[in-house]
Amino acid sequence: MEKIKKLRVDLGERSYPILIGEGLLQTPNLFSPYIHGGQVLVVTNETIAPLYLKSIIGNLSAYQVDSVILPDGERYKNLETLNLIFDQLLIKQHNRKTTLIALGGGVIGDMTGFAAACYQRGINFIQVPTTLLSQVDSSVGGKTAVNHAKGKNMIGAFYQPQCVIADTATLNTLDDRQLRAGLAEVIKYGLISDAEFFCWLEENIDLLLNRDADALAFAILRSCENKAKVVSQDEREGGIRAILNFGHTFGHAIETAQSYSDWLHGEAIAAGMVMAAGLSLSMGWISAEDVRRASALFMHCALPVAPPESMSSEQFLTLMAVDKKVVDGSLRLVLLKAIGQAVVTSDFDHRLLVEVLQRS
Amino acid sequence: MEKIKKLRVDLGERSYPILIGEGLLQTPNLFSPYIHGGQVLVVTNETIAPLYLKSIIGNLSAYQVDSVILPDGERYKNLETLNLIFDQLLIKQHNRKTTLIALGGGVIGDMTGFAAACYQRGINFIQVPTTLLSQVDSSVGGKTAVNHAKGKNMIGAFYQPQCVIADTATLNTLDDRQLRAGLAEVIKYGLISDAEFFCWLEENIDLLLNRDADALAFAILRSCENKAKVVSQDEREGGIRAILNFGHTFGHAIETAQSYSDWLHGEAIAAGMVMAAGLSLSMGWISAEDVRRASALFMHCALPVAPPESMSSEQFLTLMAVDKKVVDGSLRLVLLKAIGQAVVTSDFDHRLLVEVLQRS
Repeated sequence: MEKIKKLRVDLGERSYPILIGEGLLQTPNLFSPYIHGGQVLVVTNETIAPLYLKSIIGNLSAYQVDSVILPDGERYKNLETLNLIFDQLLIKQHNRKTTLIALGGGVIGDMTGFAAACYQRGINFIQVPTTLLSQVDSSVGGKTAVNHAKGKNMIGAFYQPQCVIADTATLNTLDDRQLRAGLAEVIKYGLISDAEFFCWLEENIDLLLNRDADALAFAILRSCENKAKVVSQDEREGGIRAILNFGHTFGHAIETAQSYSDWLHGEAIAAGMVMAAGLSLSMGWISAEDVRRASALFMHCALPVAPPESMSSEQFLTLMAVDKKVVDGSLRLVLLKAIGQAVVTSDFDHRLLVEVLQRS
Repeated sequence: MEKIKKLRVDLGERSYPILIGEGLLQTPNLFSPYIHGGQVLVVTNETIAPLYLKSIIGNLSAYQVDSVILPDGERYKNLETLNLIFDQLLIKQHNRKTTLIALGGGVIGDMTGFAAACYQRGINFIQVPTTLLSQVDSSVGGKTAVNHAKGKNMIGAFYQPQCVIADTATLNTLDDRQLRAGLAEVIKYGLISDAEFFCWLEENIDLLLNRDADALAFAILRSCENKAKVVSQDEREGGIRAILNFGHTFGHAIETAQSYSDWLHGEAIAAGMVMAAGLSLSMGWISAEDVRRASALFMHCALPVAPPESMSSEQFLTLMAVDKKVVDGSLRLVLLKAIGQAVVTSDFDHRLLVEVLQRS
């Protein structure tokens, strides 16, 4: 087994470590420092369960371990599915010292974290992300949520895990489309806050696409470091944290329009990032060459660089109007001042936004 | 209009005021210091709406005011009804600076507070309790929740309002049964932490039953002061705060057995408090005279002093096993060391508990 990389997310009394390494799920006693009661509920889905549920349960024999297997997919990330977790906790009489373990991708992490925030008004949980996207994104920052039919992530909480355990071996079972969707989020960190990392990605993207273990571990660590730095400054998204949503206002509109059932999250935000970069160009903030570099990297990963043709600019504007970043009726967007430097602003020309939506 | 009584609940940056007085709902600009955005959603129920919704909306003409009218009753305090609040917030495009106003009793307060905790991961809310029970209980402490079919208040959050506005005039429209159920919670404060107040209640209970405005205002203020003192010491119920649940472990079992559709909350906890007092007597901690005084005061208010005959001791034990105060399999109860002095303990004789359940 490789050496374990460790990163601490610094949030005062809510600080927690992220452990990154190959084969962590099989490492004896890795979980026990983070489990404080005698009960554990593993929350996973029907895709992940056959792959890892047995081995994780085998590693938790000191506890009362129960599990709940949810249907797989963003379209099940709602209050109804959340209730399946509560059902299981109550059927198995889990008390407020129980620990939830989120074994799966971002959807499982978001739902399990929100269930932990709410069950008996708050219990502990551990993130075990098994996709690239969740290892670089939902594992840091404590955003938990479920979707509402009228908007993505509209119902949730800020709630931090006890720790995150990212086993890079789980990426070997990820299909190519999921891997590439995860790379969209990795590339995002380069674009919003780390120009050096963006250059590294341009040079090493083929290693990542070919699942080189060292390259993946480096990209995961660097992504988590970038995110942790932002989150530590602004845990509850009063300001700077919103830059992490680069491409997401556009991307969420795409996902909502598709009822979360067509494009993957990473695909939707790849298109969204290119749209946001396009608006940044229209504003004269970045160069056409910057937009070309971003698009080229996404295209190299076979990620979309434009929204679905079926979506009209009117549909975008309606869906974007309920974005959580809207304050007092004014839409705020994350735009680029340069590669590696994002800003949150409502100071953009609305006509240029409409133009970007129309030509996309 | 009477002078406004004001009490501050001291919780650091989450501190907030409670305003108590007659006619507050009609007082111009009373809400505006506590509303920070341009939008308000009033959440109420079909019983309260015809009485006060129009006047509260009339007092908020400076804002975009929407409202949602929920079905009335504890049996609707669930995720499904909660979703009606989210529906309305999204239909009317409320952003994260919106303010929810909970206009109603404890059920409305619990659901609105939890909706505020979750919508866009947390928005502001104001409590406007219109029942005696909610004015002395849910207005202080930030506990919000909905019920699950398998347990009361199992899904929720600790979340503090911007302020509480308790208009004692709203108690004039309360039916007698609701008033008496509220007195159960008032008497609770005497029993758990304020022997002097208990004596005052013994002497003045008829004034309260006859809705004497001064007596009610005093009892509400004194109850809130007692609760605020406990909550300030232990916001998230790590220890002492649990004494506020005196009678509730038994009472919640009764409510769950009845699917929240027969006895009122105050009635269930009155019976629960007498049961807890009975166990305290069996343990030799309080005298038979203490139990008699407590029972007499409840009976004077026509409140139950024993559980429904249909409930068996086995049913109690099963339902109590999922109580939120259970830690590592051991049931903790709130018992009395004296009138005015409660303790949270798992140090009681389980056989004596079974005896109390069997003879009740």
